[in-house]
Amino acid sequence: MEEVAVVENKKVILKNYVDGIPTETDMELKMGDTIELKAPKGSSSFLVKNLYLSCDPYMRSRMRDFHGSYLPPFLPGQRIEGFGVARVIDSDDPNYTPGELICGITGWEEYSLLRNSNELQLRKIQLDDAIPLSYHLGLLGMAGFTAYAGFYEICSPKKGESVFVSAASGAVGQLVGQLAKLNGCYVVGSAGSKQKVDLLKNKLGFDEAFNYKEEADLDAALKRYFPEGINIYFDNVGGSMLDAALLNMKVHGRIALCGMVSLQSLSSSSQGINNLYNAIPKRLRLEGFLQSDHVHIFPQFLEHVKEYYKEGKIVYIEDMSEGLELAPAALVGLFSGKNVGKQVVRVANE
Amino acid sequence: MEEVAVVENKKVILKNYVDGIPTETDMELKMGDTIELKAPKGSSSFLVKNLYLSCDPYMRSRMRDFHGSYLPPFLPGQRIEGFGVARVIDSDDPNYTPGELICGITGWEEYSLLRNSNELQLRKIQLDDAIPLSYHLGLLGMAGFTAYAGFYEICSPKKGESVFVSAASGAVGQLVGQLAKLNGCYVVGSAGSKQKVDLLKNKLGFDEAFNYKEEADLDAALKRYFPEGINIYFDNVGGSMLDAALLNMKVHGRIALCGMVSLQSLSSSSQGINNLYNAIPKRLRLEGFLQSDHVHIFPQFLEHVKEYYKEGKIVYIEDMSEGLELAPAALVGLFSGKNVGKQVVRVANE
Repeated sequence: MEEVAVVENKKVILKNYVDGIPTETDMELKMGDTIELKAPKGSSSFLVKNLYLSCDPYMRSRMRDFHGSYLPPFLPGQRIEGFGVARVIDSDDPNYTPGELICGITGWEEYSLLRNSNELQLRKIQLDDAIPLSYHLGLLGMAGFTAYAGFYEICSPKKGESVFVSAASGAVGQLVGQLAKLNGCYVVGSAGSKQKVDLLKNKLGFDEAFNYKEEADLDAALKRYFPEGINIYFDNVGGSMLDAALLNMKVHGRIALCGMVSLQSLSSSSQGINNLYNAIPKRLRLEGFLQSDHVHIFPQFLEHVKEYYKEGKIVYIEDMSEGLELAPAALVGLFSGKNVGKQVVRVANE
Repeated sequence: MEEVAVVENKKVILKNYVDGIPTETDMELKMGDTIELKAPKGSSSFLVKNLYLSCDPYMRSRMRDFHGSYLPPFLPGQRIEGFGVARVIDSDDPNYTPGELICGITGWEEYSLLRNSNELQLRKIQLDDAIPLSYHLGLLGMAGFTAYAGFYEICSPKKGESVFVSAASGAVGQLVGQLAKLNGCYVVGSAGSKQKVDLLKNKLGFDEAFNYKEEADLDAALKRYFPEGINIYFDNVGGSMLDAALLNMKVHGRIALCGMVSLQSLSSSSQGINNLYNAIPKRLRLEGFLQSDHVHIFPQFLEHVKEYYKEGKIVYIEDMSEGLELAPAALVGLFSGKNVGKQVVRVANE
């Protein structure tokens, strides 16, 4: 009889559904569970060792007891899940072979038994010395693709246009700004600290950047950077920044609504958007989108962005937390802007 | 020497700039001014006798002391202007001949001396026994064209989709609903009185209609009429109705923002839009528009809508006020929903 190794499988579980902003105590690192390092025969599943986990703002919506969304909620007492990079250890699925690397939805735990389905959005990835493996969660993952699909498919950019990006040093924003520059646009970003503003101007190539926390009047700040108005606003925050942008859009401007969901979680008593009426005389288009509607251009995205990166035309900033035990803090940090760049957790060494 | 008739020229003037909702006392019927019934030689102008004047919500924006809009404000002490149907009386412009009928921006007065320019949006119209002349201000005018361009160019309608129209018995809404029905859609309208609701259901062919003033919960009302959700919302009012619609849109729904400007004037302390974040998970498109951006399809609009009307496939409801002296009340009535259908003022008999 074959001997199967049984190992501890640490995991991060959701303790209870969350109402407002998630805190570390809404999650728990659960020790002591074990797992057989084997994909059961006849299960069509495969076992992976998780290497990197992605912290994304949308995950907050799965921590609520709300079933009307496009994603089901997590289950209290069960492990959280999210995008990750993992290595196949054993497999009862002929499409997956031990040693292969995959990217897709996995568990917040050391080892996960996965069965392929569309929901997991699994794709195989290759080791490439020129590109860090964790970038498949950011630059080449959902965040990067959100930036790419949102900018090209929703914003209809033209050379010479003026582009404003909020949460500009974040996982999505930093690529939007760089794509806009490569497209010949004038690009300004907002962020929440001096360090981030410096990165935007000195590392990410934005034309200008400002710290929104130091601006008493966001409308005045935007007028300073866009005296002629904004053609494209890539909105990652909603709220008062969106309201200020609405006042500063040019005629026929486009607003890509990307990250408002995350902001919505930050204030239980939302103040509402007061300047939407500007959309009529200015003929603005506001469009919400999800990257998952644009998968037909994913191969093109991968090719373009990999090439830009290898040519040194774009860079990408990651914020790496070391160890599964730091994952709850890393996720929670997103909602206070603690992360600088794309937040990733290293679960195990490659 | 030629003898020129001089006649009295009653006019409606703006007394002072308006802050909130216009009232009749913001305007004044000015008697006693006279005009020579002649277009001065060398002036390139032409003199018209005004027959019908159009009352439109956008005119409120020209009663404010605000110069940042797409239209300049009226001047206090001077006559108001707006769309009208008029007959040419005398002309120093070779393109206009006495006896011809025109539609375009004219003065709120008995006679106007006009000089052609793009701003006046002048077009010649023909007497047609099958179509009332005043319809060139509604069904075949800016209101009708707003409905047509908004529905076909902004809403991307598909057969079988569900369409919600607010202010549905108004100048624009009544045509939107009928076009949607002709397009094979399920159509529900909201309006502000039992009389209007009856017209929507019994005369304008809407599938359903409701009186928003009798609904304590607009979200619940929309859920009642759209248990499966709304594909297209043609928004003529903004505010709480837009907020309720955002909660009830289907994935990939479209919202044409048309008349919010008029509502904006009704509340100095706007409550704001609280449900815009729904645009992201539902991938909604909200688009503000002005008919003037779509003039390339105006000929097609005229042809289609005239044909529909002559075939009895669409009807049009007008609210006709008799006499220039009633024009201020007619305009003011728009902002309390007093009008039933397109508000027009008859200045003189044809």
